[in-house]
Formats: sequence, structure tokens, C-alpha cells
Amino acid sequence: MDLENGRCRVVIEGISPQIDGGRYPIKRIVGDSVSVRADVITDGHDLVAGCVRYRPVTEDKFVEVPLAALVNDRWQAAFTVDSVGRWEYAIEAWIDGFATWCHDLERRVAGGTDITVDLLIGARLLGDAAKRATADDKTILTTAAAAVADSKADPAARAEIALAPELASAMARNPDRSLATRTATFAIVVDRPRAGFSAWYELFPRSFGPPGAHGTFADAEKVLPYVASMGFDVLYLPPVHPIGRAHRKGKNNSLTCEPGEPGSPWAIGDETGGHKAVHPDLGTLADFDHFVRAAAGHGLEVAIDIAFQASPDHPYVTDHEEWFIKRPDGTIQYAENPPKKYQDVYPFNFESEAWRSMWEELCGIFSFWIGHGIKIFRVDNPHTKALAFWEWAITRIKAEHPDVLFLAEAFTRPKVMYALAKRGFSQSYTYFTWRTTKHELTEYLEELVNSDVSEVFRPNFWPNTPDILPEHLQHGGRAVFCTRLVLAATLSSSYGIYGPAFELMENVPRAGSGEYINNEKYELRHWDIDRADSLRHVIARINEIRREHPALHNNHSLEFHHTDNDEIVCYSKQDRASGDAVLVVVNLDPHHTQSAWVTLDLESLGIDGEAPYQLHDLLGEGRFLWHGAKNFVKLDPHEMPAHIFYLKRRSRREQDFEYFA
Amino acid sequence: MDLENGRCRVVIEGISPQIDGGRYPIKRIVGDSVSVRADVITDGHDLVAGCVRYRPVTEDKFVEVPLAALVNDRWQAAFTVDSVGRWEYAIEAWIDGFATWCHDLERRVAGGTDITVDLLIGARLLGDAAKRATADDKTILTTAAAAVADSKADPAARAEIALAPELASAMARNPDRSLATRTATFAIVVDRPRAGFSAWYELFPRSFGPPGAHGTFADAEKVLPYVASMGFDVLYLPPVHPIGRAHRKGKNNSLTCEPGEPGSPWAIGDETGGHKAVHPDLGTLADFDHFVRAAAGHGLEVAIDIAFQASPDHPYVTDHEEWFIKRPDGTIQYAENPPKKYQDVYPFNFESEAWRSMWEELCGIFSFWIGHGIKIFRVDNPHTKALAFWEWAITRIKAEHPDVLFLAEAFTRPKVMYALAKRGFSQSYTYFTWRTTKHELTEYLEELVNSDVSEVFRPNFWPNTPDILPEHLQHGGRAVFCTRLVLAATLSSSYGIYGPAFELMENVPRAGSGEYINNEKYELRHWDIDRADSLRHVIARINEIRREHPALHNNHSLEFHHTDNDEIVCYSKQDRASGDAVLVVVNLDPHHTQSAWVTLDLESLGIDGEAPYQLHDLLGEGRFLWHGAKNFVKLDPHEMPAHIFYLKRRSRREQDFEYFA
Repeated sequence: MDLENGRCRVVIEGISPQIDGGRYPIKRIVGDSVSVRADVITDGHDLVAGCVRYRPVTEDKFVEVPLAALVNDRWQAAFTVDSVGRWEYAIEAWIDGFATWCHDLERRVAGGTDITVDLLIGARLLGDAAKRATADDKTILTTAAAAVADSKADPAARAEIALAPELASAMARNPDRSLATRTATFAIVVDRPRAGFSAWYELFPRSFGPPGAHGTFADAEKVLPYVASMGFDVLYLPPVHPIGRAHRKGKNNSLTCEPGEPGSPWAIGDETGGHKAVHPDLGTLADFDHFVRAAAGHGLEVAIDIAFQASPDHPYVTDHEEWFIKRPDGTIQYAENPPKKYQDVYPFNFESEAWRSMWEELCGIFSFWIGHGIKIFRVDNPHTKALAFWEWAITRIKAEHPDVLFLAEAFTRPKVMYALAKRGFSQSYTYFTWRTTKHELTEYLEELVNSDVSEVFRPNFWPNTPDILPEHLQHGGRAVFCTRLVLAATLSSSYGIYGPAFELMENVPRAGSGEYINNEKYELRHWDIDRADSLRHVIARINEIRREHPALHNNHSLEFHHTDNDEIVCYSKQDRASGDAVLVVVNLDPHHTQSAWVTLDLESLGIDGEAPYQLHDLLGEGRFLWHGAKNFVKLDPHEMPAHIFYLKRRSRREQDFEYFA
Repeated sequence: MDLENGRCRVVIEGISPQIDGGRYPIKRIVGDSVSVRADVITDGHDLVAGCVRYRPVTEDKFVEVPLAALVNDRWQAAFTVDSVGRWEYAIEAWIDGFATWCHDLERRVAGGTDITVDLLIGARLLGDAAKRATADDKTILTTAAAAVADSKADPAARAEIALAPELASAMARNPDRSLATRTATFAIVVDRPRAGFSAWYELFPRSFGPPGAHGTFADAEKVLPYVASMGFDVLYLPPVHPIGRAHRKGKNNSLTCEPGEPGSPWAIGDETGGHKAVHPDLGTLADFDHFVRAAAGHGLEVAIDIAFQASPDHPYVTDHEEWFIKRPDGTIQYAENPPKKYQDVYPFNFESEAWRSMWEELCGIFSFWIGHGIKIFRVDNPHTKALAFWEWAITRIKAEHPDVLFLAEAFTRPKVMYALAKRGFSQSYTYFTWRTTKHELTEYLEELVNSDVSEVFRPNFWPNTPDILPEHLQHGGRAVFCTRLVLAATLSSSYGIYGPAFELMENVPRAGSGEYINNEKYELRHWDIDRADSLRHVIARINEIRREHPALHNNHSLEFHHTDNDEIVCYSKQDRASGDAVLVVVNLDPHHTQSAWVTLDLESLGIDGEAPYQLHDLLGEGRFLWHGAKNFVKLDPHEMPAHIFYLKRRSRREQDFEYFA
């Protein structure tokens, strides 16, 4: 209750979009429209007017767009965020004295009451506005004020002047906002398009050397054309830093490490350096820079892995013992998930009294790599570092580098995953990896797409990762790899695979684990990427479809359609601007042919229920003519377990043409 | 982001109950339980603990109640608000270092790993807690710290000491909260029971004098036993102040007023006084005081009407011209709804530059009448006064007089009605007056009872008012009066009628209006309250049922049950504490007998679907034996259009007894 401001009678409530009352920014992609809504009310019967004020925070001045009334005292205004960076908006609203007066005057005239005094009130409103106005408006309003006040003229004629629509426009341009109510500002983080639409490929550069040798960045450059040929746009590398020697893990996560074994890239740091160094066996920083440029030449943006933890050999351990937890025996606390011990890794202590210097240093790691051309960071286990740190660090980095993106590798409890998104992560790994049934997929996507979560949390769907070879991939053969690929690439506008394990359909776990056997995390692998049965061409086609179809560049339009078989899932995506529409039908059973009647929501798809419409299968190249809402599909997983249909709808114009023909 | 506080790792979000992020207080009745819930999360795998802290704002110290975990990182704690006035709560949560350590130690012991160093860590935690503890806990913790640290003892025995439940309790009582996170406080307005459960009766005292004469407070005292006999608890009087003479309205809202006509009580003020005076024809202030005491003697609390507007003769108009709007011709702006003019009433100008002195004066009117024993105010048209004023005035008055209640007579747009409730009104008139169909009633009650609205908005259902004789009451005869009475009195825990017009079933409107003909607002009426066909005994019985059945004292338990006839509505209310349950079935058709199969939600009603259960009709005195969910009802509106069933369910104990018998 602002007691300095008791005369301001307009109240603005129920503002959307916002998260936690404006505590955290919402997210948008450059070019998006932000549709702001609020309840705008006042006491009595006065009419209100208002605007949404918005700006990139780097600008001094706000731009204003007028609020338009919806129903039930709800108002709306939209604006486009046309540059990357932090924006903000506020709402301002006021009593529209002139509109109120006009409304009353019309009723007075209709009721035949004496309007002499009312005309003088209107003239005063016009005169006051003239004082605020400039240029043409000043002239219009001054003239009108005099005419409406002219007691020698006919009151009816004066009312007509007052009620002219042009005068209403001039008054709307010069409102009395002296008693306006203004809300707090609400922040928007506007990202470049890749934040919302991206296809990721993860590989271990060290696995691409000559047989038996540790691969280098130079070796990995040779595989860039292969990755590019599959149509990916982000190439993500596990940590590229020196690997510690103390307690180094051997093949298959063995506690004993044979001489010459490379160790896990996530055990970061040795005497040659830590998070700001590259592993000598991969090459030099200059080689890294060269690799990044070479990738860019193939249309691939390199993302690197940032894992905030240190091997016992990391320089931080000696230089900044205060950033770690000391045990009573004087040793430093290693990572644990009792009874499992990870003695090759020391976690940072976010309760350290030296937290300020630690935050500065960790944040500086991002800055260092930004200096080497990296603009996308895949952050390892961000949920084991303080949430407050992420908000501070990401906000700080994006203030200087608004095009930098952060992918949260947080496979943890849902509230924590969403909390990380609120605090600034641009994208996040998800539970998709384990969601396999129609019910699970539908329920999860509804949560991601149709709840407030969608304002901050951008999913990135991964069928596999070096850490996760899910049960279904172990047993479903080629079909399940195709199914998971199609689902990931079409349900979510961002997705990724860990390759070449994925396209070569690696499916054998290490006994008793959900991890790959002979995992690249602990040893060098050599991949036969030219194997005839590779899925590389299916992947290439799917990424091509994704690029060509704007409908697949968003998640908000996702809609599930009913099918009468739980093994068949059907959904659509649309792009309003281009009119593009894609319908996907997937057989979730990797072993048997399944069929179903699917019932489309024709209205939301903009399909005329009376006329046939064509579906073009972009995967299988078949063409189908469907009619009405209910149609039959049948999918043999041994051929291709999915249709990705381009939905050819006649435009309204074509229909009109046909109607008149 | 609190950069002073980077080490505090716990995050508290999604707090309920709260309104607009804590901007407005929620409301409760004294004795209510407040169940607070929040998401409590932290990074990593540490366990958290926390509490809800609460207090009446007049107390210095907070009381704490521990949070208990629900599912999905949601936590809950409840407390009882046991005194009237403003309360507040906050949530505090922290990392539970000892619980985390115990959890890990159990897994280490189970995994057979060396726990020597871990025991020293635990001993340190115990020793630190001992420093915080007092009395017995200090001894327990000091002893345990030494035992767990004792390197000469067997580690397994030391672990057993550390993991003892009594030690966990002692540690939970002495947590390390140095890095705790605390939320802002959330306010609660706690009202006396009448705010949530009340039966109102409105009458015009001036209509109870000898035939032809203006009634006085003394005359009206004679009608108190009659009102009390019907079981009401609030007696509400239209404005009792002097009535202006300028532009006084005549009978039936005539613009011309014959000599001797009394005028509308809402045209407040003449040369003898304004809002702090009583009308000389009603008596003196002493007579008013006597009336209030006499009413109390009959169990009736007097509520008065506060209408912030002035007749042209009100002393404010001359003494405080600055509180009104001046027109260009020098006159003061009267109330209008163009082309209608209400020249007998001047509205206050809430945009006046003298708003501070006006707010003080208006607020002082409440204080004045509180000084005369009034604790309930029915506020006339609060929606035509600034919302900010109400928040300030009500908060201020309740800070000094927490038992004062305000009923908002705002028949306006829904968002404005809810905005008034947020700003402090204890109860509000509603749209019930016009909601007649099953669909309308169900939809409206769902909004009032099952949305956030219920945290602030307490409905008061009125079938009629001096301003409103709704269409259905004009044509439905005795049956519709009974129907509307039962609906008002059982759907809402607070309701009221304008009498004796209601019980005498007045149903003739003034031509072309939705108002009564010969309306008491403009003339004296004389009522034959002893008329044989009066509904007074039905009303008395319904108010008796309301008092006897705690189920009818709340709204939150309201549940509608399915019926297969749109003319039959069925709903229940329950009281958890007493186990009381009431089931109401109403025939909405005043003209024809209607029947229906109703399907009860047996689970929520706690009814065993396998055994018969008894319903006792409290209105008609019939007894019915029902079985299962689906049962048949038939209601003849010419007898009684409703059942109010007391639902006799066997207690769990009776059922167990039967089971073992």
C-alpha cells in the first residue's frame, strides 16, 4: 500500500507471463512475440486505458504498446523481442477521463438531457490535453477545446465535434497519466534461435586417432564432414582438459588403472593445468581453436562440457584448499554416493567461507572459453552446485555475452531441474531418456509444453548419453533406435545423440549397470562409422526434415491426437507464420506391426472435415489421402516404425476459389 | 539474488496458501488450522529440514512447527490460529547435516567400508550441536560426541551410538541454522467465527412505528423478539443518519417528493449532521445505543450500513468542498448513471488533492460507530470508492479492533469484487441473487469454493435485497421463496434476507424495474408479520438446522453430486472435527414435481457402499434408508421443494463392532 500515492485508482493484477511473481525472467527466442496480459480495474464506472512498456535493458527508453481489452477486465498487448539479450516489460494504466466523458455524453445526448455544463467539462479535458500535446495534436486539441467550449454554438454541434473519432485518437495519444499506476518490471531473457531449435551430436575426440593411439583435435577434424553430413548443428565435446592421475579409473570403471589407460575426462586437472587448459594428448589451445573454426566451416558449433569438480592433481587443490571440504584426518573430501567412493574427483564446497573467490574463479572458466570462441556450454551435474551460484554466474555472463547458451545436464528431481531453468539455464536434459510408453510420453510432454514450466524450461531430448544406455535400447534392435530418434527429434525442438554409439546401435551394457560396456568414458574406442547398417542416413533425413519444416522448430504447438492403440502415438506441430504442419505417427512396439485408428483434432489442424486432405510421408516418401477426423494407420517396425507426415492443407484461398468455381 | 548470502544453499518456492505472492493476507477463522506447503530443495544430495514460523503480529516471538516431507520435494506444516487478529507466517529451511551424515553412515556400514574418519566427522557435528544445546540435550550430545569420537572403541559400536533414534531427536532439536534460508512473511487475517458463519436479517426500523408514523429505535426494539425467533444472529439496519432534503426522492423513486415523505436513507446528511449522527425521527444516539444493547439481549448483533456519499445538505459539502468534484458552473458534481441523475447524492472525489484528510475522516466514521458498540459494517457500494482506501482503512481499523467485520455490498464485475476481498472485506454480497439453474449454481460455487478466491472471498448469499427483487421471485410463488432460502442458507455458510418482504413473499415489482413496488427505500411500510402464510417458521427451522449442524458452518467442504435431472441439484457439506454431514437435495422447478436419480460420491462422504445408510430429513422429518451410490428422490414444490438430510453414517467403530459380531 503506497500511501504516497493514494489518488492512483487503477489496479493492475494477474500479470502474465511471469514466473514466481517476477522473481525470475521468462525466456523467449529472438523474433518471438510476447503477449502480455493483466487484469486492469478501477473503482466506479470510469474507463481505463493503459500500455505495456518494454525495452532491451541496454536501452534507456521504453517503447509503449497500448493495451486492448479482452473480456472480464482482462487486457492484452503484444510486442516482438527483436534482439538477443535481457529485456524487460512493465504495465502502466490510468483512468481514461476523456473516453469516460465521451461515453457518458453519448448517453446524455441519447437521453435528451441538458449537456451545457458537460460540454464545458469536455472542453477542459481537451484544453488540458492540448497543453501536453505537441505539433499537430496540439493544434487539433486546442481548436476542439475552443469549439466544444463555444457557448454561442449549438450544443448538439459541439457534442458532435467532441465525439469525432479523430479527436478520440488525438486524445488517446495524449492521455493524462499523472495518476497512472505502474507495475514493477518483469524480465525476459531473449536467446538466439539455437536456444530453441538445435540438433546435438556428442563425440569423444580422443576416439578418432589412428588405431591404438589417442586421438587429437586434428584427428577429430577429419570426422567433421561425417557429423555435418548427418545435419547436426551443435557438436558437443566431453571435457577437453588434462585428466588427473590419482585414483584414475581404468576400463569399464575399474578402480585399478593399467599404465597407458586414458582415464575419465571428468576427472579434471593435473600438474599441467585444470579447467582452463586442454589435455596435451588432444593438442594445444591453438589446436582447439583450429578445431572450433574447422567445425564452424562445416556448419557445426562446438559446445564444451564444463564440470565443476577437480581431480586430486588439479592445481586448485593445492592453490585453493579452502574451496574444498577438509576431513578430520587432514585429507580432502572426495565425491561419494555411499558406499561408492569416487576418489578421483573432489567436489567444490559451496558452503566455503571463501565462496566469493570461488564463484569468481568458476565463472571465469566460462569467460576463458568464450575467449576461445565457445558460446555453448553443456554443464555437468549443475544440480550438485549451489543454485544461487548459477543464477549469479549465468546472469553475469549473459549480460556481457547474451548469445551464450547453457545446457543443464541435471538428471535429478523435477523441482530441482525446473529451479535450474528458472535461474538461467537455456536448455536442459530431461526424463525423455526413460519415458517410453504412450502414457508416459503424453503426460511428460503435457507438463513441459502446457504448464508454466514452458516459460523457462527448454527441453533437449537425448535417447542415449555416455552415462545412459537405457533398457529399451538394449533389446529393441534397429527399430527402437529409429523410434527413439524420431520421438526425440520431433517431440522436442532440441535433441541430441551420443555417437557414433547411437547410429551404430551399440546396445550392450556393462554387466549390472545401465552404462555401455567398454565405455569411452574410460578407454579409447574406434568406430567404424562407414558400417553399412549405420543409421546415419536415417538421421540425416530426419535432420533435413527438421530444418525444412518450421513446425518442428517449436514445442508450444505440440498436440497429441487420440489413437485407439496404446502402441501407436500420434501428434502434430504447426508453425503459424508459415502455415507449416507436421503430423507424426510412431509405433512404440519395436517387435510387431501395429495398427490404429487415429482421430485428429481437425479444427486445431485447420483441416476441412468435409474434403479429403493429403499427407506426404517425409520419411517413407509415401502419399496418403485422408478424409475426416478418423483414419487408419499401420506401421511395421522392421521397415520404419514411424511416419513423419507433411500435412498438406488447402489454404483458405484455395478453398474459396474452389467454392466460387 | 542475495549476494550477501551465497552460502545459503536451500531454496524455498511454491509457497501456499498465499495471494499474489504474499501481497495480500489470506483469511481464516479463529480456531482454523493453517496448512502451509512449499517446495524445499537444495543442490546435491544433502537432506533438508525446516519449519514454519508463525505468530500473531502483536507477539514478539515466533512459534515454530517442523516441516514434514510430502512427495516430490513438497513439505508441509500446520498450525492453529487461536486468536483473532493479524497473524503472519514464514518458512525457514536448512541443510540437515547430521541426518545426511546418518543416512550416508548407514549405507557405509551396510557396504562394509571403513568408517573411522566418518565417525570423527559425526562426532564433530555432535560436538557443535552440543555447543548450541542447553540442559538435557547438552549432556546427551556432549556424551554422544565423546563416545562416537572414541578411537579406542569398536567402530560398529560407535556407529550404533550415532544412529540411535533418541540422538537423532536431540540433534533435530538443535540444528545448525547458520546458513538457513528464510522466506518473507505471509499475513493472515484471523476473524471471529461470525465472519464465516452468520445469518443476517435486514429491516428498516422506520417501518415499525404505529400506523402512519415514522418508527423509532424504541419501536424497532419491539420487533427484536420476532427476528430472534427466526434464529438470525445479525440484524442489519440501512443508514440511520439524517436524510437530506435537497432533491429528496418521493415514493417509488419519484423525482418529486411530497411533504412528509421520508426520503431515502442513503441520501445522507442534513443540517443536523451526517455520518456520525442519527436521524432525529429514529431517536437519539442514546436511543441507538439502547437498541444495540436490546438486540444483543436477544442474541442479535446489530450491523449498520456505511454509505460514503453525501446529500447536498450534508455538513461535509460546506465544510469540505475540496472532497467533492466541482463542475465548471460552480456546482458540485452529483451522482449519475447517464442519462439518469441522482441529484440527491454527491459522491466523494477519491482523486481529490485533499485525499489524506478525506481518508482520515471517512475512516473515523467507522471508529465513531465502533465507539457505539457496532462491530459489523455493511458497506454500501465499496466498488465506487478507491481500492487503495479500503486496504488502508480496513487494515487500520482491524489493527485496533480485530473483531470488526466488513460486508462489501459490491454487485459489480468479478475481478473488482475479488479485489475488494483481497483488500480486507470480511464478507461480500455475490451473484447468487441471479444464479438459478443447476449449471449456474454449480459453476459459481466451484469458483467460490475451489479456487484461490476462497482464501480471501467469503460469500454472503442474499435471495433478495431492498434493491433487488429478482425475476424468479416475482413468478415462482411460495415454492421459489423456499427454494432460494434453502439454497442461500445451505450453499453458503453466511446468508441474509431483506425482511419482512422476504418471509411475507412480496413479489410485485415497480413497473419497468427489478425493484419492489412501494419500496421501503422511499416510504414507510407497515408489515403484518403475523400473517398465517408467513415463511417465518420455515426460516426458523432452517436457521435451527444451521446452528445444530457444524457441516453447514463451512463452505470448503461443499461437494456437488450428480443428478440425472437438471431441475434437481444435490450437494453435501461435512465437518471433519465432529463428523457431521448434511446432504441437500433441491427441486429448482417451483411449478412441478421433479424426480431424479442422484449418484453420491460415497467415498468422500465416508459411506460404506455395501451397507444401507439412513438419511433423516431435517426439514420434512422423514427418514429414508438408502443403499449404494445411486438413489431416487422426488420433490413436490407445493409441499416442500427441498430435503436437508442429516446423513447418519455408522462410525468406523460401529462398523468394526458389527464386523466382529
